[in-house]
Amino acid sequence: MAIGEIGHVDVVGSKVGGCHRLALTDKDKQARDLFIKWAQDIGCTLRVDAVGNLFLRRKGKSDELKPVMSGSHLDTQPTGGKFDGIYGCLAGLEALRCLNERNIQTLRPIEIAVWTNEEGARFKPAMLGSGVYAGVFKLEDALNTEDESGVSLEAELERLGYSDLADLDDPGCHQYFELHIEQGPVLERLGIDLGIVSGVLGVRWYEVEVTGRSCHAGPSPMDLRSDALVGTSKMITELTDMTMKHGQDSRCTIGELKIPNASTNVSPGKVKFSLDLREGSLDQLNELETKAFETIHRIAYHHQLEIGIKETWSLPPCPFDTKCLSLIQQACELSHPEVEPHSLVSGAGHDAVYISRVAPTAMIFVPSEDGLSHNECEYTSPDQLEKGCDVLLNTLILAANCD
Amino acid sequence: MAIGEIGHVDVVGSKVGGCHRLALTDKDKQARDLFIKWAQDIGCTLRVDAVGNLFLRRKGKSDELKPVMSGSHLDTQPTGGKFDGIYGCLAGLEALRCLNERNIQTLRPIEIAVWTNEEGARFKPAMLGSGVYAGVFKLEDALNTEDESGVSLEAELERLGYSDLADLDDPGCHQYFELHIEQGPVLERLGIDLGIVSGVLGVRWYEVEVTGRSCHAGPSPMDLRSDALVGTSKMITELTDMTMKHGQDSRCTIGELKIPNASTNVSPGKVKFSLDLREGSLDQLNELETKAFETIHRIAYHHQLEIGIKETWSLPPCPFDTKCLSLIQQACELSHPEVEPHSLVSGAGHDAVYISRVAPTAMIFVPSEDGLSHNECEYTSPDQLEKGCDVLLNTLILAANCD
Repeated sequence: MAIGEIGHVDVVGSKVGGCHRLALTDKDKQARDLFIKWAQDIGCTLRVDAVGNLFLRRKGKSDELKPVMSGSHLDTQPTGGKFDGIYGCLAGLEALRCLNERNIQTLRPIEIAVWTNEEGARFKPAMLGSGVYAGVFKLEDALNTEDESGVSLEAELERLGYSDLADLDDPGCHQYFELHIEQGPVLERLGIDLGIVSGVLGVRWYEVEVTGRSCHAGPSPMDLRSDALVGTSKMITELTDMTMKHGQDSRCTIGELKIPNASTNVSPGKVKFSLDLREGSLDQLNELETKAFETIHRIAYHHQLEIGIKETWSLPPCPFDTKCLSLIQQACELSHPEVEPHSLVSGAGHDAVYISRVAPTAMIFVPSEDGLSHNECEYTSPDQLEKGCDVLLNTLILAANCD
Repeated sequence: MAIGEIGHVDVVGSKVGGCHRLALTDKDKQARDLFIKWAQDIGCTLRVDAVGNLFLRRKGKSDELKPVMSGSHLDTQPTGGKFDGIYGCLAGLEALRCLNERNIQTLRPIEIAVWTNEEGARFKPAMLGSGVYAGVFKLEDALNTEDESGVSLEAELERLGYSDLADLDDPGCHQYFELHIEQGPVLERLGIDLGIVSGVLGVRWYEVEVTGRSCHAGPSPMDLRSDALVGTSKMITELTDMTMKHGQDSRCTIGELKIPNASTNVSPGKVKFSLDLREGSLDQLNELETKAFETIHRIAYHHQLEIGIKETWSLPPCPFDTKCLSLIQQACELSHPEVEPHSLVSGAGHDAVYISRVAPTAMIFVPSEDGLSHNECEYTSPDQLEKGCDVLLNTLILAANCD
């Protein structure tokens, strides 16, 4: 809540208020400085990399071994909450405090990472800092990225003093764990406070254009029309039904739909809509795509409509590391044997997706009230936050004591 | 085609070009003047009423009897064709020419009316001139109506000299007949060149607002969503199916659909759509409305969505006069016994709808190529136009010889 004061927004209906703290703004710097101060207060050392990612390090007995890493981000959406990202960073810090208080020395060092510009709300794309760390994005491209007012990421890193601190010496990462709020309704509906995240859904985005023949609402009998919206509606209905049968991790979302030159008394000749498909494995995603295309083309044929489909973006499915998942499972049993943790997938992307490309990775979820996130009413209770933190602590101990 | 030159627009793919001739512009005045000249050339007298409607009169043997009237309009849509409205006026003139050439004297006088601002493209609402004539609109309100640049109808009537001519002496109307292109595909599909229009469909417009809960496309499993677009799509599908079963004159059109704050990876929490329902009789329209509302509310309940429905405009069904229809039927048999005229409804409004409130009325249709109208490619072949004209001529003779 102290970090949440930085960028705090009063919101009617929100239990603790929202937060407006875009990446590499003065407010983000204030939050990062407070975080660094707290970490240094308990003896951590700071390393900053070339894209402004922060690493707060607690020594291990064998300090030359690769560190176990936990982390998340401190930046928020424009109308964000106080938990998305921030919780993961602070839980890592709290785990280190516990280790200190109980004089527990781990074999490996532990590092808490604060990734730059996870939200993508100021600089595109999202998960920029972790993407550079994992080699998904070139450092040069990331530095040249500009916000809407034309300010580059590099200029902000210089202005805030991170460029001077940049240390290119990378000790690597043994295993990475990220604790996060779920941002969906699954754990809350089940009444389970702990989730073990088996992976992140792959995503494909498409633009679909449906072309029929527009005609006047009056003189055209129903059976002589080629109404692009009527066809599209059948597609949406059948795509949804098909996806629900496809599997519990399958997702199909039509978020945008436009009728060019729409008029109340004209049956639409053209409709454009967006299609967002998600699945847990590449095979399943391919199968979901095939079925979706079949559905669209079959209905188009039946309604005498023409179809154009263009893929606009994609991200492959990201299954997490089984060893890391097993460590989290053990940590749950150690810290909260009364809770049967629920295994689920993440539908949204996280820094962990990119880190998983360079280190064994897994995630822990706690519930989000009403499934809300990217929303000023985002909330998770202190009791639930504490449970997640307990599991992260035990996970880090288990991981950092393996050689 | 000579009148079509006034406002002619060259259009690729159009057989005779389009026409841009908005009501009471200089071009409209030119077309009206040419029409008046042609009518006066064959001995007609002109009367102009207070809203600029023109009446070209051919004397009857008993000239004190109410005239039989035929007419339509000379104004066009911004991207209109050369037939919608214009055909009806010119066919009336042609009928009078035939009567002259054959020295046929009718018992009653015959008047050809040119109604002001039928299209509603420049001044709102549509069918303004015939509406004032029929007492549907107050003259004062009509005169105060302004176009988009703030020019009033009254100012244009004055500028064009119609105010000075205005004659408030109204000889009434014994029966009114309007010949028009179909503006839909029915006659063309049937391969029948003559249509007897039994009436004009009643229309009701609604705005429907569907409210669910928006959520992130990834973290929200399909079965935990209340997606307003998925619900709306089922509604559109079932409304269409229900309407097709309801009757051959039933129409249901969703022409506009909007998703506020739409985003590719957000399942929509709100959808607004327009609903246009049409039916041939008041009972059927009420029944169609009841079924439509039931469909919407049933699906909303099933998908946990809230519904708001607001009626925004309506026009009652307008069944035409049986005696007038029977005269047209006789005229078809006299002029084209080889054609079995098809009885159909008009889905679009016409001046005849308003005139029917003050005089027995019916309409004759000829086919529209590809069902097109309000379109620069609007076309009806000379042969089809001639057939319609023949029927109008015989209808006028039959009607004008009844006392």
